Amino acid sequence: MSFRWLSKALQSRNKERLCPVCPSISRLFSDVSSHSTPSFGIVFDIDGVVLRGDTPIGGSPQALRKLYHDSGPILIPTLTFLNDGALKIPYIFLTNGGGFRESNRASELSKLLGVKISPSQVVQGHSPFKQLVDRYENELVVAVGKGEPAAVMSEYGFKNVLSIDDYASCFDNIDPLAPYKKWTARLTCHDSTTKLVPPKINVHSQRVQAAFVLSDSVDWSRDIQVLCDIFRTGGLPGRNFGHQPQLYFAHDDLAYQAAFPAERLGLGAFRISLEAVFNRVHPHPLEYTTYGKPNPFVLKNAEILLQQLVQSLQHNAHVVSHASAGSHHFKTLYMIGDNPSVDIKGAQQAGHPWFSILTRTGVFKEKENHPQFPANLVVDTVEEAVDYILEKECTS
Amino acid sequence: MSFRWLSKALQSRNKERLCPVCPSISRLFSDVSSHSTPSFGIVFDIDGVVLRGDTPIGGSPQALRKLYHDSGPILIPTLTFLNDGALKIPYIFLTNGGGFRESNRASELSKLLGVKISPSQVVQGHSPFKQLVDRYENELVVAVGKGEPAAVMSEYGFKNVLSIDDYASCFDNIDPLAPYKKWTARLTCHDSTTKLVPPKINVHSQRVQAAFVLSDSVDWSRDIQVLCDIFRTGGLPGRNFGHQPQLYFAHDDLAYQAAFPAERLGLGAFRISLEAVFNRVHPHPLEYTTYGKPNPFVLKNAEILLQQLVQSLQHNAHVVSHASAGSHHFKTLYMIGDNPSVDIKGAQQAGHPWFSILTRTGVFKEKENHPQFPANLVVDTVEEAVDYILEKECTS
Repeated sequence: MSFRWLSKALQSRNKERLCPVCPSISRLFSDVSSHSTPSFGIVFDIDGVVLRGDTPIGGSPQALRKLYHDSGPILIPTLTFLNDGALKIPYIFLTNGGGFRESNRASELSKLLGVKISPSQVVQGHSPFKQLVDRYENELVVAVGKGEPAAVMSEYGFKNVLSIDDYASCFDNIDPLAPYKKWTARLTCHDSTTKLVPPKINVHSQRVQAAFVLSDSVDWSRDIQVLCDIFRTGGLPGRNFGHQPQLYFAHDDLAYQAAFPAERLGLGAFRISLEAVFNRVHPHPLEYTTYGKPNPFVLKNAEILLQQLVQSLQHNAHVVSHASAGSHHFKTLYMIGDNPSVDIKGAQQAGHPWFSILTRTGVFKEKENHPQFPANLVVDTVEEAVDYILEKECTS
Repeated sequence: MSFRWLSKALQSRNKERLCPVCPSISRLFSDVSSHSTPSFGIVFDIDGVVLRGDTPIGGSPQALRKLYHDSGPILIPTLTFLNDGALKIPYIFLTNGGGFRESNRASELSKLLGVKISPSQVVQGHSPFKQLVDRYENELVVAVGKGEPAAVMSEYGFKNVLSIDDYASCFDNIDPLAPYKKWTARLTCHDSTTKLVPPKINVHSQRVQAAFVLSDSVDWSRDIQVLCDIFRTGGLPGRNFGHQPQLYFAHDDLAYQAAFPAERLGLGAFRISLEAVFNRVHPHPLEYTTYGKPNPFVLKNAEILLQQLVQSLQHNAHVVSHASAGSHHFKTLYMIGDNPSVDIKGAQQAGHPWFSILTRTGVFKEKENHPQFPANLVVDTVEEAVDYILEKECTS
């Protein structure tokens, strides 16, 4: 059974199932298999839009399923090779959150949302740090944040990265509050069984060249203390003043929606704390670079990734595209988010072809549009947002 | 053997031992026993002056021993009742630090320094919170800081106080970083075996009326989040905005000397962080009251405590004082500290009869006097400071 026959068989069986709302979606599928490409893509924020903590919200599983081919109960061994996980509408998750490898996050999201998500569909706040590997590949750098920040950075290609946990453990008494932190399994610098600090790194003589904050700091008191030590001394805690090493933040969200009813303080709050303290103890103000939405380049990068995803879908569908690689033109890119000052502002600043949709399931909860960063559309849930998009695209 | 005979016996045996530097000290002792009172007193800072972490520094054990009667090898059962622990020169510890009951701290200091220190000689940053019992005795208040803040407040007389640990444990998901904190023995709000939250307190309906920060916050991310929740909602996290409850800090030290070579961030840094974050998320700026040095009333209070100590010494020595209670006049009060902006500034602002001495074993390490808060005298160590005082007082 050749691939083309399979896809035609699926078309006739699933014509209605594919898009009960919009019969034209099946034509869209046909379009994909008959050499044209979707003219729109979707970017979803995660926290407060599809998930709250680990709980799907706003009908997100159903909403996402509408973006896939409905494979039904057919069990065909080759089905797994169809359309890169049977994706129909190109979409990615663009979150300022992070701390985990994109592959792990994609796997986790797949389980929580019940659809197959590939690592190439997950863009986290720190994903652009990959672009800094050339500069810091062999330099001693420190990674901060919940999750596995050093593992993430290692996977990106940084060869001399330590988590701030491991780095701090090498300096006796650097955190005077440590005895009060009832941590389990305290790690030590010289624990050869765990090989936390590779033998080639001597933290007492090698200067830290940069610190990367990938996600929320867990232990603010220790991290702010150690980062101040690093930045004041040019990368050698306990020594004299020196030129401040570089500092990068994956994003600057002041607050975000988690499981608690009221929004929670985000990485931006940590940055504000660190900056306020550092600027009181040091004669020169803290210098740093922040990534993440609403930076326009982040949305530009998202557009490129969606183009790559379309190419990947075409490749998997054995579609020969007459358009050259990288030049696929989207008429519209939909940004679905819950945080006006992050998601909507980002789309606003990026301009065409972005169309912003604000949900009420997260940071934003108002009836009327946001006054300072008004979205193109305000809906209650992500499912409403997807239905709106599919209907609009069908009738356009 | 009557007390008076004992004291004379000690005088003759110990005349030289009492003060090899200054024979007049024995006369001082005689003065005490013969109805006059010392004309000077000493106030010691702790961190960076007598201790670094738990390690005595600057010859502090020897320095302090000079302020006691030398009891030598004589074992006399009644000796323990002599002069309130055989104290000779009235002195107290005046520290901005805290988190423990004064009795526990005195006991710990006694062990570390090898001299008998009574609770009445230990004044911590939060000691003045006792004065607020009338206002908050039966109100729900939250206590923050390393050590045992709720136990301290209970001992002061507050009847409805919860530590921020216990309070936060009553709100699910209030700290989204909690899963990343590898705490042992996580406490739960409803753990009836430990009875963390007394049954009469319902944190979901009773407003927190005040928060007291007694010592360094251990978990800044959690404490800043929960305090913001309390202050934004008028004392009911998760609810609507409300009038900010009161906030009290035991002190505002930006940095202090601990075991690490470079000074460590203090409670003032926590206050700066909290304030910077709160003022970004809330329309009204954070309001609070700070205690501790260099507030002038703290030194005034220290003077009163020294007067009470003198009365206690006189009482123990069966000395009849012709001066009325509370009116003992000190010609000089010596403040020995390591932090110019805290200890020396405090003495400066308080004026007569304060004489400030700056040591080089802590925050301050310079050769020359501090330019902004110059002390009356700069010495290397606390032992030098005590020797200077004893010599000066002997020749005056």
